[in-house]
Amino acid sequence: MKTVFHLSPCALLAMSGIAQAQDAAPPDVAPYILTTLLFLVGGFLVFWMAAGFAMLEAGLVRSKNVTMQLTKNVALFSLAATMYYLTGFGLMYPADWTVAGVLGPLFSPTVLDAVGLTADDAALDYASAGSDFFFQLMFCATTASIVSGTLAERIKLWPFLGFTVLLTGFIYPIEASWQWGGGWLADAGFSDFAGSTLVHAAGGFAALAGAIVLGPRIGRYPGGRAVPMPGSNLALATLGTFILWLGWFGFNGASQLAAGTVGDISDVSRIFANTNAAAAGGALAALALTQLVYGKVDLTMVLNGALAGLVSITAEPLMPSLGGATLIGAVGGGIVVFAVPMLDRLRIDDVVGAIPVHLLAGIWGTMAVPLTNDAASFGAQSLGLLAVGGFVFATSLAAWLVIDRLTGLRASPEDEIAGLDVAELGMEAYPEFARGQ
Amino acid sequence: MKTVFHLSPCALLAMSGIAQAQDAAPPDVAPYILTTLLFLVGGFLVFWMAAGFAMLEAGLVRSKNVTMQLTKNVALFSLAATMYYLTGFGLMYPADWTVAGVLGPLFSPTVLDAVGLTADDAALDYASAGSDFFFQLMFCATTASIVSGTLAERIKLWPFLGFTVLLTGFIYPIEASWQWGGGWLADAGFSDFAGSTLVHAAGGFAALAGAIVLGPRIGRYPGGRAVPMPGSNLALATLGTFILWLGWFGFNGASQLAAGTVGDISDVSRIFANTNAAAAGGALAALALTQLVYGKVDLTMVLNGALAGLVSITAEPLMPSLGGATLIGAVGGGIVVFAVPMLDRLRIDDVVGAIPVHLLAGIWGTMAVPLTNDAASFGAQSLGLLAVGGFVFATSLAAWLVIDRLTGLRASPEDEIAGLDVAELGMEAYPEFARGQ
Amino acid sequence: MKTVFHLSPCALLAMSGIAQAQDAAPPDVAPYILTTLLFLVGGFLVFWMAAGFAMLEAGLVRSKNVTMQLTKNVALFSLAATMYYLTGFGLMYPADWTVAGVLGPLFSPTVLDAVGLTADDAALDYASAGSDFFFQLMFCATTASIVSGTLAERIKLWPFLGFTVLLTGFIYPIEASWQWGGGWLADAGFSDFAGSTLVHAAGGFAALAGAIVLGPRIGRYPGGRAVPMPGSNLALATLGTFILWLGWFGFNGASQLAAGTVGDISDVSRIFANTNAAAAGGALAALALTQLVYGKVDLTMVLNGALAGLVSITAEPLMPSLGGATLIGAVGGGIVVFAVPMLDRLRIDDVVGAIPVHLLAGIWGTMAVPLTNDAASFGAQSLGLLAVGGFVFATSLAAWLVIDRLTGLRASPEDEIAGLDVAELGMEAYPEFARGQ
Repeated sequence: MKTVFHLSPCALLAMSGIAQAQDAAPPDVAPYILTTLLFLVGGFLVFWMAAGFAMLEAGLVRSKNVTMQLTKNVALFSLAATMYYLTGFGLMYPADWTVAGVLGPLFSPTVLDAVGLTADDAALDYASAGSDFFFQLMFCATTASIVSGTLAERIKLWPFLGFTVLLTGFIYPIEASWQWGGGWLADAGFSDFAGSTLVHAAGGFAALAGAIVLGPRIGRYPGGRAVPMPGSNLALATLGTFILWLGWFGFNGASQLAAGTVGDISDVSRIFANTNAAAAGGALAALALTQLVYGKVDLTMVLNGALAGLVSITAEPLMPSLGGATLIGAVGGGIVVFAVPMLDRLRIDDVVGAIPVHLLAGIWGTMAVPLTNDAASFGAQSLGLLAVGGFVFATSLAAWLVIDRLTGLRASPEDEIAGLDVAELGMEAYPEFARGQ
Repeated sequence: MKTVFHLSPCALLAMSGIAQAQDAAPPDVAPYILTTLLFLVGGFLVFWMAAGFAMLEAGLVRSKNVTMQLTKNVALFSLAATMYYLTGFGLMYPADWTVAGVLGPLFSPTVLDAVGLTADDAALDYASAGSDFFFQLMFCATTASIVSGTLAERIKLWPFLGFTVLLTGFIYPIEASWQWGGGWLADAGFSDFAGSTLVHAAGGFAALAGAIVLGPRIGRYPGGRAVPMPGSNLALATLGTFILWLGWFGFNGASQLAAGTVGDISDVSRIFANTNAAAAGGALAALALTQLVYGKVDLTMVLNGALAGLVSITAEPLMPSLGGATLIGAVGGGIVVFAVPMLDRLRIDDVVGAIPVHLLAGIWGTMAVPLTNDAASFGAQSLGLLAVGGFVFATSLAAWLVIDRLTGLRASPEDEIAGLDVAELGMEAYPEFARGQ
Repeated sequence: MKTVFHLSPCALLAMSGIAQAQDAAPPDVAPYILTTLLFLVGGFLVFWMAAGFAMLEAGLVRSKNVTMQLTKNVALFSLAATMYYLTGFGLMYPADWTVAGVLGPLFSPTVLDAVGLTADDAALDYASAGSDFFFQLMFCATTASIVSGTLAERIKLWPFLGFTVLLTGFIYPIEASWQWGGGWLADAGFSDFAGSTLVHAAGGFAALAGAIVLGPRIGRYPGGRAVPMPGSNLALATLGTFILWLGWFGFNGASQLAAGTVGDISDVSRIFANTNAAAAGGALAALALTQLVYGKVDLTMVLNGALAGLVSITAEPLMPSLGGATLIGAVGGGIVVFAVPMLDRLRIDDVVGAIPVHLLAGIWGTMAVPLTNDAASFGAQSLGLLAVGGFVFATSLAAWLVIDRLTGLRASPEDEIAGLDVAELGMEAYPEFARGQ
């Protein structure tokens, strides 16, 4: 009788939905479920960033290139999803680090957990394979999204998509494996919580290589002077920024990779609060600095300031205080204000400002980690930046040059002047709105 | 002493927030809480699809009809919310399947759980009534959203809203009850995980009946030739597509209807990953096919390709592999590319392509279930499609004809040419932007 | 042997991720984790409302003021985030209610939980400090968002931002502390579940004070007659409304402040369903009333009707039935239809209709609480409205007058006519779209 009394709660737990019996002891499945949920929610938030990049870029290009920019964004995400399934996920998380172990995944598309997985077969200390794949895929796609904005208004569709295949299927997964796959960079003590280097600087380096090969838009630097080419729809650009800001809660928050304990969910909360603070700091810095430096506030700088704040906090969103996060973000926003004219002096034509936002603020965020995280060192951070930057820049440069040789990267001058929408796609984004200038 | 030691954890659980005592054995309430959470998160994601339809349709109509299209989308969702409360939910889940049981709900608006529900009174093997209603309501609204795009630019506001009342209050709940209410179609072995037939093909059939009764827009098929009438804002259309893609994670994922076990949350993860893969497959298929067939990529086809991929995977998002899901979606995208000109040959004027996307890809997705799910058969799938399609098409056709007789469905030719915004609503969507053509 | 068998589940629970041992009895951490999750999800949904306000307002102003309206919205959110960190959160939740306890937080920026918090140190009956701060911050920002729409098209950027600092750092936190900080208004029996008064009416009162000081736009009331100045982009305005509607599920739902029991998660579900019903009721009321009163449906009224429905249910989203919630929302929608012309007769120029939506529907929602909640009384509700309204209106009026004296609030007539975008920011939102009128 007493035995039954004692046993019944356990027996009930054993039969219950969250606790499959393993001998007599039910394993605790709550952390698995909660971390899986974190990946699913975080993953759909980062998915949403694809829409943010599309809107930001569609708003910052001239109206004659909007359809093309939208097409590139939908296509690059779709390619990233497919390439990350075919080769990327396997390359990023090699089963072992022998030559065979690293090359094997090349021929092994991603496989999800079996339907109706049991607790016995689950990675109870982590999360479902499907949620992990879903979440990690979004980071791969983000890296590619960064590239499309810089190269807008002059690169042809298919060569751009060809590069996207290489970036999402090979370049990103390989460099990310060094750290997040448990590779040599992680062993060397590099610290990059959610990817200031692995995602943002990497995307920025790929974009920089492309911008150098492509050259600036026609009429952008006549006689060395920078001629502004204003974005056609700042409401869309602002919407895109808010979308990215929202998505970043998933980007940084779910990179905690666990949600099943008091410590983990409280850390996720810190990350949400700090991520928001850094974005605000970046926007306010750009707001104040454009007023001080140029005598008027520049909305596109404020938007990019917020994004730079987000990139800056991404390497270490957990350890800083709220005030520290605000300052880290503010420095990122300041970088944008001063880097945009600097790029113009170098005649590097970055249509949406992705190089200041993702590459330069990514470098800042990476190097700022040791300021708040004692486990990080400036040496290891520099090593990581040099390794990832060198690899991504070199492979991207080679890829851009090869594609250029094979098919040509750049639209013809006539097509560029007419706008890629009509010239290459035969479809205007706003066919009824008369051009005013 | 030892007894106390044994009892204390159980006693503590019994007193704790997630475990109300039932005699000595605390029931496990975690699955209830987690599944309720799944419905709430899934429900707000599917709600968001209402915004997606509004943006997609506003972007694909001409600017003179944008205010009307926006008005219809806000109004149809609001009507769906109210009708599903008044009659829909009750009709869809009859207490019993006797005549009295089926007709009774007609006079019984939905009742939520009591405030502060206790574990003793809760459906611990499922979820809260409020979350279930909230989630299911969004599917009803989605069905109505599908109709509005096809009939745009020529149907008057109030007759359209009259049909919406019938569709959301009666037609959808009745056909959905056959399967999801535990009715005869479920007994017959029909398999439709999240509604390729029950929602998407049903909405498509209702739209098709309306398009036949309404006829094409003035000037759409002069001498049988199809004249394109380009959408006025492809940035909005792309935004709408991304919104729908995001919302679909809730649409398919939360249709698992459970999140409280390792198996269920892992299955939800599979569904998220497969849903994304199918959308990507659909977009890539349309990208490649429009390049191959027309010599240039068509963004509106790529957007509809992604949506068709999503519709295609909706009948069975759980069982396929990632590769299978990509292919199932790709076939959906291909259907769009070839069906749009086919509809034009039939002079069925579908302004946004909802019939290829929701009806035809819905049929494909439904018939593809047996390819990956051994419990499904082509016979039962055909039966379901015929029954739902026949019922929805016939009742919709009758409804459209009756409304047409009573009030007239179609705007006058003068109003249609002037645009419904000025003619019927007296309010332009973009009053300051000059018309360029 | 039997002892081991009995002990093992408990021992395993004690070692597991969700249960840290405290002596022999593991504390139940699931409610803490689930409530924290509720705040994070609710918080990002309310964050998203900042984008909703930005899009709504950008769509309802004329195109010459869109860049300015976007800039204000990004900047006010960023300022709110920073001020709520510096002074707001501390002022709103004073450690004690002595003079020193209330003034102390002024000099104590918000501090998050320690990294890697243990169950021993956590507020296990509530949620993580970070998630609480994140969620509450969004309410502070929402209050400021309400103000920007009313004062659009004529107020200069920096004076507006100066007021935002005062509102988000001091005025809102102080009045909100009276109720949500456990202050005297809570003791007096005032009932305001998610802030019809504390957020919405408060924001509306601050806007009203500003509108009185600023005066109407040039040409708005020539000879006392109201001249409509139509919004430039109703697609954006509709998108903004859908965003706000979505965000409101977090606004009201997570205001349950708990998600770890059957009762709490079921109550959150009721709130989601009722919030949706009220929005639908508000939209349908405005739809029907504009048809009946004006002879044609007015989309901007329908949008504001939905928002007024949401504001109306915010004071008590839990207790009403679905039908009751629909009616409460419908009254809110009706208020909008009749209040907009009333404000015009008073020559109070409210560009986006924020005063009817947030102030008047907020009053209605607050006074409607006793209709469904027996614990509330009309007396206490009136007291709360008078106290909060009086305090916010008086302090706001003083602040507006002081700022006006110090720097001038209003743009010069030349700047106002040219549009603030070109005059103050030197940047157009739609530089390529020709003006048609």
